[in-house]
Amino acid sequence: MEPIRVGLLGLGVVGGGTFKVLARNAEEIARRAGRRIVVTKVSARDLTRAKERVGNDAEVVTDPFEIVRDPSIDIVVELIGGTGIARDLVLEALAQGKHVVTANKALLAKHGNEIFALASSKGLMVSFEAAVAGGIPIIKAIREGLTANRIEWVAGIINGTTNFILSEMRDRGLPFADVLKEAQALGYAEADPTFDVEGVDAAHKLTLLASIAFGIPVQFDRAHIEGISQLSAVDIKYAEELGYRIKLLGITKRRADGIELRVHPTLVPSKRLIANVEGAMNAVLVKGDAVGDTLYYGKGAGEEPTASAVVADLVDVTRLHTADPEHRVPHLAFQPDSISDAPILSIDDVSTSYYLRVEVQDAPGVLADLARILADASISIGSMIQKPSADAPPRAEIIFLTHEAVERNVNSAIALIEALPTVSSKVTRLRLENLG
Amino acid sequence: MEPIRVGLLGLGVVGGGTFKVLARNAEEIARRAGRRIVVTKVSARDLTRAKERVGNDAEVVTDPFEIVRDPSIDIVVELIGGTGIARDLVLEALAQGKHVVTANKALLAKHGNEIFALASSKGLMVSFEAAVAGGIPIIKAIREGLTANRIEWVAGIINGTTNFILSEMRDRGLPFADVLKEAQALGYAEADPTFDVEGVDAAHKLTLLASIAFGIPVQFDRAHIEGISQLSAVDIKYAEELGYRIKLLGITKRRADGIELRVHPTLVPSKRLIANVEGAMNAVLVKGDAVGDTLYYGKGAGEEPTASAVVADLVDVTRLHTADPEHRVPHLAFQPDSISDAPILSIDDVSTSYYLRVEVQDAPGVLADLARILADASISIGSMIQKPSADAPPRAEIIFLTHEAVERNVNSAIALIEALPTVSSKVTRLRLENLG
Repeated sequence: MEPIRVGLLGLGVVGGGTFKVLARNAEEIARRAGRRIVVTKVSARDLTRAKERVGNDAEVVTDPFEIVRDPSIDIVVELIGGTGIARDLVLEALAQGKHVVTANKALLAKHGNEIFALASSKGLMVSFEAAVAGGIPIIKAIREGLTANRIEWVAGIINGTTNFILSEMRDRGLPFADVLKEAQALGYAEADPTFDVEGVDAAHKLTLLASIAFGIPVQFDRAHIEGISQLSAVDIKYAEELGYRIKLLGITKRRADGIELRVHPTLVPSKRLIANVEGAMNAVLVKGDAVGDTLYYGKGAGEEPTASAVVADLVDVTRLHTADPEHRVPHLAFQPDSISDAPILSIDDVSTSYYLRVEVQDAPGVLADLARILADASISIGSMIQKPSADAPPRAEIIFLTHEAVERNVNSAIALIEALPTVSSKVTRLRLENLG
Repeated sequence: MEPIRVGLLGLGVVGGGTFKVLARNAEEIARRAGRRIVVTKVSARDLTRAKERVGNDAEVVTDPFEIVRDPSIDIVVELIGGTGIARDLVLEALAQGKHVVTANKALLAKHGNEIFALASSKGLMVSFEAAVAGGIPIIKAIREGLTANRIEWVAGIINGTTNFILSEMRDRGLPFADVLKEAQALGYAEADPTFDVEGVDAAHKLTLLASIAFGIPVQFDRAHIEGISQLSAVDIKYAEELGYRIKLLGITKRRADGIELRVHPTLVPSKRLIANVEGAMNAVLVKGDAVGDTLYYGKGAGEEPTASAVVADLVDVTRLHTADPEHRVPHLAFQPDSISDAPILSIDDVSTSYYLRVEVQDAPGVLADLARILADASISIGSMIQKPSADAPPRAEIIFLTHEAVERNVNSAIALIEALPTVSSKVTRLRLENLG
C-alpha cells in the first residue's frame, strides 16, 4: 500500500521527537499499521536548522499554511502550540479535508467544541492522545478501554513540573521558591513557570479528561484552578505525619447535580499508589462502576514520550481513515448527539474532606471553640493534631482533618474561626481525597 | 440503528457480570457505541437458574452450539473457559462468520495461532481484552496505545491469587501453606489452586502479552514457568532487608538473539511502583523505546472488572465490524504477514540478576571460596549480607545479590558451591529484576 503522507507543523521538542521516532521505528510501525507513515513536509521557523534535522527525507517550509493546503498531505500534525495560529491551522486543515493529530491541550480545552464540531461535520478525525499525560495512552484507555463503565471520577497527576517540585519539597523539606529555581535550572520548569505551577496546564488536560469521561462539552472556563505556589513546606510535613502526601491533582467527579472540575493541591493517603508517583512522572486514576479503580502511569512530557502518543494517533488515523466516520470513536468518547448538558458545579458546591491548620493561643477552651464552630457547620472531624510552639505567650498549631463536607460550609466555618480572638493566623485550608 | 445482537456462551461469574453490566449501563454504552448492544441468547448448563438470572431479556438454551449457529447473532462471547469445547465453539462461530469476544487465556495461549488464522482468513475479529489482567485495558494499550514503540520488555503481576498470597506472607511473616488456606477460605484461591500458584495462569497471559508486544506467534509451550509454592517466608524477609519485594512476575524481553518468556518469583526494588501493588490487584509494566516505562494497574479478576473488558471489546467490535478487515487492529498487533520468527530463548540463556542464599560453616575462608566460585563463573556480586545462626557448630546464612549474569553460569556456580564441604544447604536461587 502507498505510504500515508504526514505534514508536520512545528519542529520543536515534540515535532523533532515525532520525526525521529517515525524514522527510527519505521519498520516496526509499518509492521503494525500495514503501511508506512512518512513525514513528507515540515514547517519550521528556522529553515536552516530544520533542514539539518530532517535532511532530504522531507520538504521544509516556513509557512505552515502551505502544508495544511497541500493536497498531497493526508494527515496534519499540529505541534506549534498555543491558541492563536494553531487554531487557524487546525480549522484550515479540517476545511481542506485533512485529519488532524495534535498535542495542543490549550487549544482543545478552549476551542475543542468548535474544532470537533467542524471535524464531525466533515467526517474527519482530530486525535489528541499527546495532549494529556504525554506517552500514557490515557485518552485511549478512557475513550475505548473503559466503555463498559459509568465513569465516576478521574483524578490525575497530569503536570510533571509541579509533581517534581512537590516531590523535592517533601524529600528535602525545602520551600517552594528554592525548589522552583532548581527545577528551572534542570529544565523541569520554564523560565515563566506560571502555566505549570498555577495549575493552568493541568486544568487544560483535566478539561479534556472530563469531557471524554462524562461526555460533556469542553468547559475550561468553568474549571476551578489552584496551583502550588502558595503551598508551604510545613503542610507537606504535617500531612506526612498524618499519613498523607500532597499532590497537585486534577479531579473531575460526576455527581447527581453536575460535574466537579477542579485542580488544586490535594492530600492523598500515602499508601495509595498515586501518592507514590514521584518526580516528573504522571499518573491518572480512573474509577468506573464496573472496573473499579484503574491507574495509568508514565512520563507525562518530553520529546519521545510525547512523540509516542502522536505516532500512536497517526497509526489509528491511518487505520481508520477509510472507515465510515460514524463507526469511528467519537472525539469526546460519546456520540455528538449524546453529549450531556450536566453543569459544571461551582467550587462552593464541591464536597470533599479538608485539612485545616490554624495557630491559636494555647489556652483552655480554644479547641472547644474551634470544634463547636465546625460542628455547627455540620463538619465532622476525622482526626486532629496539636503542635505546641516555643513562643511566649504559648501558642499552638492545630490541624484538623475533616470528613466530607461542602466547601461553602467549610469556608463559612473558616471565617468564624478567623474571627475568634484566640486565633492568631489565617486558616490554611487544603482539600483531601481518599481515592479509595 | 438496529441493536448489535450478542450470544453469550456461559453464565458463570464473568458471563453473569457481562449480562449485568450490559443491562445496567445500556444507555451509557449506547451513547458511546452509537447503537445498543443486546444479549439476545445465553447458553448455560442450569436452565432454571439462568432463566431466573436473565428474565425475559434473553432466550436461554443449554446447547451453546445453538448460539454459534444462530444466524441472528452478530457476536459470540465465549465465557465457558478451558481448551476443549470452548475451542470447538470459537472455531465454529468463526466458520459461521461471527466475530468472537473471549476471556479465555488458556484457549488463546494454546490454540491462538489456529484461531487467529481462521479469523483472519474470514475477515473476522477475535477480541480478548478480558483474557489478560481483567479490567485493565492492557491489550489495547500495547496493541494500539504504544504502536510508536519498539517494545523492549513487559513485566506484570498478572495473577491476583499469588499476589494476594505474597502480600499476606510479607505483611504477616506467614508461610505459604497457611496463607494459601486463608486465601481459599476467602475465595481468592480455588480449591485446586495449582493453575494459579504454580504460575500456569500467569504464563497463559504472558504468552499473549509477548505476542502482541513483539509480533510473535503464541508459544505457551516454550514459556518457563515457576510458581510460588516453594517460596519461603525467610527469603521474603531477607529481600525486604535488602530493599526488595518478591512478586510473581510474568516477564518477556526482546533480545538480539530471541525472546525471553518466563514466569517466576522475582525480587523487585521496593521503591518501584509495581513492588507496591498489593493484595489481589494486577499491574503491568511496559518498556517502550520512545515512551519509556508505562504502568497499568487495576483489578485483574472478578465479575464486573472482567465484564468491563468483555464489554469494551463488544463496543470495539460493534464499531469496527463494517470496517475493511485489513484496516482493523491485527489480532497480534502486527500484520499477519509481519509476524516475527524470533525464537523463544531457553531459561538457561536468560540473563538477569540473582538472589542466592546458602548456609555455611561460620569459619575463615568460606566466604572467600564462595566469592571465588562466583568470580570464576563471571558473576559479579552487587551486595552481600551474612546472618549468623545460634547453632553449634557455628553456622551462617550468606545472601548474595549478583549483577546481571547468564542463568547457565549461575547454575554451574551453584553446583560447585553445593559441593563445597563447608556448605550445609542447597542454594536458594531467586531472580531479580531492577525494572528501572
